[in-house]
Amino acid sequence: MNGDPVQAKLLEARVARLATADAEGRPHLVPVCYAYDGRSFYTALDRKPKRGAPEQLARVRHIQANPNVALLIDEYHEDWEKLWYILIRGTATLLSEGEEHKEAHRLLKEKYPQYRAGLLPEGALLIRIVPTRIIAWGKL
Amino acid sequence: MNGDPVQAKLLEARVARLATADAEGRPHLVPVCYAYDGRSFYTALDRKPKRGAPEQLARVRHIQANPNVALLIDEYHEDWEKLWYILIRGTATLLSEGEEHKEAHRLLKEKYPQYRAGLLPEGALLIRIVPTRIIAWGKL
Repeated sequence: MNGDPVQAKLLEARVARLATADAEGRPHLVPVCYAYDGRSFYTALDRKPKRGAPEQLARVRHIQANPNVALLIDEYHEDWEKLWYILIRGTATLLSEGEEHKEAHRLLKEKYPQYRAGLLPEGALLIRIVPTRIIAWGKL
Repeated sequence: MNGDPVQAKLLEARVARLATADAEGRPHLVPVCYAYDGRSFYTALDRKPKRGAPEQLARVRHIQANPNVALLIDEYHEDWEKLWYILIRGTATLLSEGEEHKEAHRLLKEKYPQYRAGLLPEGALLIRIVPTRIIAWGKL
């Protein structure tokens, strides 16, 4: 632990929201589980029920057409003095194999018991997000 | 109450995430409070601290350049069987006055005691989102 509250939230938060946009700039938005290795974010096309095969998913088609994405980590409180968010803007790549893919699978399983219990198929496609800018707002 | 679980969640949820994209298709993402009148969604440039004046905010500049937006309403649970989300894709307009602006201010104050307590300045700029498509996923 380095005591940086932004890094701590990025490591600990259980859910993020991922925004992609198609080639015409129409945004799409989905909640995602993710792992963070201190540099990049990884989210998997996992075994939660999906609207179609991985390669047909809007987020995948959008990233293939337009790699710009945004990832938001926040928590809602009725006490608005406690609100905070962290916005990551960056570039997404699809990862289907290799050392980084393997290591990210390991991180996802370490973070989520649900993945250890079988919801992350061996070799599942990953989205890697490399931040270009991280903006933190509020009471972190 | 009409018993439609999607409509119920859209009316009751306390927070949503709003994705916009600039003219180059780079997404931006922010948590928002909102009101829903059964047709359109309204979110205000309120008195929560902001990174700059309302007209300089990324979401406002983006909507002026590109009215396509996405709004996501979801709740995270560690029991992934309970996960759900509702994705609204639509078109955003800025509203600064008129009957609809007044009525949306009333709805926002009705929904959020924080707004009744003074966090919604008289005449504050609103974003209206008219859905073109609503997609519901999971255990609603």
